Amino acid sequence: MKTRVYVTLKGGVLDPQGKAIQNALGGLGFSGVNDVRAGKLIELDHDDDVTDAAIEEMCKKLLANTVIENFRIERSA
Amino acid sequence: MKTRVYVTLKGGVLDPQGKAIQNALGGLGFSGVNDVRAGKLIELDHDDDVTDAAIEEMCKKLLANTVIENFRIERSA
Repeated sequence: MKTRVYVTLKGGVLDPQGKAIQNALGGLGFSGVNDVRAGKLIELDHDDDVTDAAIEEMCKKLLANTVIENFRIERSA
Repeated sequence: MKTRVYVTLKGGVLDPQGKAIQNALGGLGFSGVNDVRAGKLIELDHDDDVTDAAIEEMCKKLLANTVIENFRIERSA
């Protein structure tokens, strides 16, 4: 069974990586990009008996830094 | 307008970051996780007149390394 975890920076947190991407896009001649935020996508392949609660616990303990990051869990087949 | 770009490693490519996450999860006592793949999530906030083709070009030129990575574009409102 596969689960995807999306980790994104919270609103007010500065994102130097995103800014660097934005500047690089401008340098390459792409215009019209007003903001870029960089996040993480973590794909877990796990046994079927791993519960939603366990995955949320993984996010809180390891995958996301909940002080500055939000996470979203998406289970699939 | 917002667009999300998901960048993931291609199938055969080794993923040391994912392996490290998997080992750390095991060390924290989470069992049943068989594989972890780490990818990137890039959120672009751009003008409405930026075309799909332009975003695909951004992915190919900067956001993804198409030799080892796949990308998926998801436009939203």
